[in-house]
Amino acid sequence: MVSDYYRLDELLTTEKKLRVKIRQFMEKEVAPIITKYWETAEFPYHLIPKLGSPGFTGGTIKGYGCSGVSTTAYAMCISEIARVDASIASFCLVQSCLIMLTIAQLGSEAQKKKYLPSLNKMHKVWVYALSEPDHGSDASTLSTTAGKVPNLIHWFYAVGPWRVRFIVHGGSPGLKISKIENKVSLRVVQNCNIQLENVFVPDDDRLPGANSFQDLVDALSMARIMVAWVSIGIAMGVYDACLRYLQERKQFGAPLAAFQLNQEKLMRMLGNIQSHRLAWITKQARETAALGRELLSGYGIVTDFHVGKAFCDMESVYSYEGSYDVNALIAAGEITGISSIRPSTPS
Amino acid sequence: MVSDYYRLDELLTTEKKLRVKIRQFMEKEVAPIITKYWETAEFPYHLIPKLGSPGFTGGTIKGYGCSGVSTTAYAMCISEIARVDASIASFCLVQSCLIMLTIAQLGSEAQKKKYLPSLNKMHKVWVYALSEPDHGSDASTLSTTAGKVPNLIHWFYAVGPWRVRFIVHGGSPGLKISKIENKVSLRVVQNCNIQLENVFVPDDDRLPGANSFQDLVDALSMARIMVAWVSIGIAMGVYDACLRYLQERKQFGAPLAAFQLNQEKLMRMLGNIQSHRLAWITKQARETAALGRELLSGYGIVTDFHVGKAFCDMESVYSYEGSYDVNALIAAGEITGISSIRPSTPS
Amino acid sequence: MVSDYYRLDELLTTEKKLRVKIRQFMEKEVAPIITKYWETAEFPYHLIPKLGSPGFTGGTIKGYGCSGVSTTAYAMCISEIARVDASIASFCLVQSCLIMLTIAQLGSEAQKKKYLPSLNKMHKVWVYALSEPDHGSDASTLSTTAGKVPNLIHWFYAVGPWRVRFIVHGGSPGLKISKIENKVSLRVVQNCNIQLENVFVPDDDRLPGANSFQDLVDALSMARIMVAWVSIGIAMGVYDACLRYLQERKQFGAPLAAFQLNQEKLMRMLGNIQSHRLAWITKQARETAALGRELLSGYGIVTDFHVGKAFCDMESVYSYEGSYDVNALIAAGEITGISSIRPSTPS
Amino acid sequence: MVSDYYRLDELLTTEKKLRVKIRQFMEKEVAPIITKYWETAEFPYHLIPKLGSPGFTGGTIKGYGCSGVSTTAYAMCISEIARVDASIASFCLVQSCLIMLTIAQLGSEAQKKKYLPSLNKMHKVWVYALSEPDHGSDASTLSTTAGKVPNLIHWFYAVGPWRVRFIVHGGSPGLKISKIENKVSLRVVQNCNIQLENVFVPDDDRLPGANSFQDLVDALSMARIMVAWVSIGIAMGVYDACLRYLQERKQFGAPLAAFQLNQEKLMRMLGNIQSHRLAWITKQARETAALGRELLSGYGIVTDFHVGKAFCDMESVYSYEGSYDVNALIAAGEITGISSIRPSTPS
Repeated sequence: MVSDYYRLDELLTTEKKLRVKIRQFMEKEVAPIITKYWETAEFPYHLIPKLGSPGFTGGTIKGYGCSGVSTTAYAMCISEIARVDASIASFCLVQSCLIMLTIAQLGSEAQKKKYLPSLNKMHKVWVYALSEPDHGSDASTLSTTAGKVPNLIHWFYAVGPWRVRFIVHGGSPGLKISKIENKVSLRVVQNCNIQLENVFVPDDDRLPGANSFQDLVDALSMARIMVAWVSIGIAMGVYDACLRYLQERKQFGAPLAAFQLNQEKLMRMLGNIQSHRLAWITKQARETAALGRELLSGYGIVTDFHVGKAFCDMESVYSYEGSYDVNALIAAGEITGISSIRPSTPS
Repeated sequence: MVSDYYRLDELLTTEKKLRVKIRQFMEKEVAPIITKYWETAEFPYHLIPKLGSPGFTGGTIKGYGCSGVSTTAYAMCISEIARVDASIASFCLVQSCLIMLTIAQLGSEAQKKKYLPSLNKMHKVWVYALSEPDHGSDASTLSTTAGKVPNLIHWFYAVGPWRVRFIVHGGSPGLKISKIENKVSLRVVQNCNIQLENVFVPDDDRLPGANSFQDLVDALSMARIMVAWVSIGIAMGVYDACLRYLQERKQFGAPLAAFQLNQEKLMRMLGNIQSHRLAWITKQARETAALGRELLSGYGIVTDFHVGKAFCDMESVYSYEGSYDVNALIAAGEITGISSIRPSTPS
Repeated sequence: MVSDYYRLDELLTTEKKLRVKIRQFMEKEVAPIITKYWETAEFPYHLIPKLGSPGFTGGTIKGYGCSGVSTTAYAMCISEIARVDASIASFCLVQSCLIMLTIAQLGSEAQKKKYLPSLNKMHKVWVYALSEPDHGSDASTLSTTAGKVPNLIHWFYAVGPWRVRFIVHGGSPGLKISKIENKVSLRVVQNCNIQLENVFVPDDDRLPGANSFQDLVDALSMARIMVAWVSIGIAMGVYDACLRYLQERKQFGAPLAAFQLNQEKLMRMLGNIQSHRLAWITKQARETAALGRELLSGYGIVTDFHVGKAFCDMESVYSYEGSYDVNALIAAGEITGISSIRPSTPS
Repeated sequence: MVSDYYRLDELLTTEKKLRVKIRQFMEKEVAPIITKYWETAEFPYHLIPKLGSPGFTGGTIKGYGCSGVSTTAYAMCISEIARVDASIASFCLVQSCLIMLTIAQLGSEAQKKKYLPSLNKMHKVWVYALSEPDHGSDASTLSTTAGKVPNLIHWFYAVGPWRVRFIVHGGSPGLKISKIENKVSLRVVQNCNIQLENVFVPDDDRLPGANSFQDLVDALSMARIMVAWVSIGIAMGVYDACLRYLQERKQFGAPLAAFQLNQEKLMRMLGNIQSHRLAWITKQARETAALGRELLSGYGIVTDFHVGKAFCDMESVYSYEGSYDVNALIAAGEITGISSIRPSTPS
């Protein structure tokens, strides 16, 4: 795994096997076929049983058939999936963090026993209704309501007079689902508009712990944190693909990996992934100092407020002990096996 | 320490005291006076005994009067110094990594015993000659030479026919030192042009282990790694100063910390420092994906090579579960205690 | 046209009508239908007669049925097309600059008379073979060859022993064309792999002026310049769509156009388009100065080489007379009709 | 003038002489000495007569001894000055736009006759009080007041019950001026804190046209526009200095101008300056499209709102007809005379 430059993988112990298993599954069964699903914007439903079989969908949940892996191990699994396909990772994330975690945290004992084991194995796949056409960032102020009599719900994710949350079964009368078309991103994920008109929900399908938006925050927060790991996975996949491509593709008689401009980009990518690469940290600190200088405006051009001085001093740090460029090329030389520090040959 | 958002400090055990001691010293004795030294481009020589007294200058070196702290602890100490002043940090780094480490690795037993204890306490402060007017990045090809007869050295850092390295004592006949003026960065550090014309160096001052440029690489590498920590320190100091300033300074009747544009900058800075902040990782992964798309050129606009697909999918990840902007403002709200998610009041 | 902030359109005289006509065509006939062609990666062939009818395809070519518009007018027309769809713009560009300009510059009088009028009206649509699987950036070293006897060509764009260029008619024996699938960009454009195996080309279809790669540079250069205008068009379309969306979409009770972070992005976009917007130029000059500081490395931290001084001074210019942020918000207030300079209302 | 890649200078007619004269003055009399003034944070007062002698200080003002150059010509003059030193440019700008334009627009006929001729020739140099310690961006709400009886003013730039503006002569009782120290930027400009305690101002020194903050907006706007040209000048100076340095300085046996990473930076700088360089515009349009995609959030990942499609399509434009990198290196090859497109020589 070339994108794991610091071999963080070696820090995992018992859960390492799970990561390796997921990587193998993704590389052997998903990578070769996923392109055509993306092109036609369809989901490879036949993969669901295999996705569910390792039984890690429940993530950190313990009991109810879930193995309760560590947050770190779960995060690395999500990254592994996203490394090959971010749609599959998002699909897993919804099932894990939004649905199962919500049930585990806000459901009744009966609901947990009834649903969690089959959700964990993906024998059931549920959807989660989070936003409305007029509410995205301000999801805490959705307009859908539910009332006890005459049992009316307009939306699955209901925040109304009762501020409760429900499980709505497919095929319920009044439930309409229409696919969102024309996506340019995560095309494999099937997003839908869900309409709920006078849908009847029995009391058993109400989550007793869900009484306000605040009750959902824990599960949403875990999902947000895992989005970071989806990002890392995407970045890893991109880096791995680029490194391979640049080493194979030749132009002007040399692999593309031999060109300075390409090497600097590789290092920026790897630095982004490792987040504490030597060459790269000075670039980030330089940006930090420039933002600080800007934030202090006029007070930022005198030394009295520290930032003006630090801004100027950062320039030396950026360039000494090998400039950012030189360090990037040294590290890139190690990654690619080709040094590009010297000038180009005359054309 | 507001810039230590994840409280990494708590992971330090016995060495935590050292970090705290250095922070106190920097805040009480350096911060109040360093501005005037920067302005006049002078060094506060009177601070040297206090800088040396904790005895951590030797860094990871064990024995010869040095306490041998862990690399992590040493790195955090250097960051603490750079947080207040990057010149002092650079000054320490030269003494520690370039000079003491070189002696420890390449010096004779007699040299180590004679010099390391007093260098560690900064009773002696040495300089290191690394580059020549015509050689910076290509430091491995310096032109200075030394010969056994008639004992001629042109430069302290000599790589000539013999490729040896020497200790040259101040006041040696033939040694000329002239200060470099007009700096806009690290003005407190005194950089010099060092000329060596027929300087005689006794055999005792030759480092027996220094026979090629390669022998110096270990010490130079440690110095390079520590430059990353100087960067982190600068960024921490800038962030801490900005957060304080933005919370105090008011415009339009509100602290500057209440404005969206300022909050996003604060979060970019803190993200740079923590390097794995949720909101921020999607920004970095987006950059990584864009670099990858660019690297594959024409092959990057089809899904067959993975990167085109990942590039498009990354856009969803950037915007879902709260967009980068929304996450940045949420985190900034926590940092500043002021939420700026809602729109501005009409002017 | 909100993206034409400086009303450059008013500088056009007789050719203004053409630009307006193209805009109307693009907005009325292309914009409403193009999405579905992008989704299915197909070309709207039925639009070709209408695209050809204004007779501007020949661009700056005079005679042979072409009206010979000015380079500026042609560039603005291409921008107008790209503003709605970059595929259609690219399609026109290939026909105009790569094909027609090549015929006009390198073809025989007979070829010009025979082909240019119908190409100009798009009664004929040709393709241009520019690269090979192993040659992209180094297009001057293609491996395809052609020989007089036994009349063998492997590729349309032939640079072999004779270094000549040919017109190859569809349906010629030995000519194989296969569509490139799975694109994520310019999906409406139909790119193909073209194989030429023992294709016979009569002498009349050889371009007499095409004797070396150098002969093609003029047409390729014009195409490259026009790519800049495709970019401008894309940026205009994006900006226009965003401004409209941000003014219509509400969150937290206010249009998205009222939020500081969004306003700054709008201004960066408009600045990118106008390229000399007040607020924006200081951002670019700041980047220029930082690049310069970096390029001079150690010499960049002293004032003696000018750049160190300019780098520091630029910081004042960035912040005085209204900082970049303040100017961006002032200009954004004008664009959106909503001032966001004041802080957010408390949530 | 290498930074004037498009030779815009040739478009100037009669005013070209003025620009050339100013350039010569800046290169011969300012460039050689300005470094030491920056280092010591002092102003070269002896240059003032020469700065004033061309009589262009009044900028676009006509009459009262001012020649009334065009806005473009004035802007290019300010750029020429800033190219060598941004402090001198700022100094001229204050005298021109803030002081003289305010007098010309808001002063009485007697004030114009009395002051403008000598201000134009810089026989008099005035200062302008614009902000207060607690008011920067919100300059329209300064707290200084003035009253007719007992003739009290606290600040030169007075917005109080009467909202008038005054001329205050040096040495007036109650006027205290203290220099602002420790700047890291525009060190040559002398900024001051100005205190006005019970300063008496005769009626003749009141600007009759200055009755509200709004009255000052015209002059402030012109100053803001000229800040853009100071930026351009700084960028030009940095570029010119870098190009020269990179062509002279050698590392690894080749001029630094021969390295890919350096060439790309040069082109980004020149692109910034010219603002419509071919290679560069695709970089800017790519940024524009990415900002737009981000602004539309979820709506930005479907093609229905245009931006998602344009975002994807822009990737082709960025890479076709020569990628951004290839175009940057081609243009850089022209600028530096050294092609770096081919790979580095093995080290």
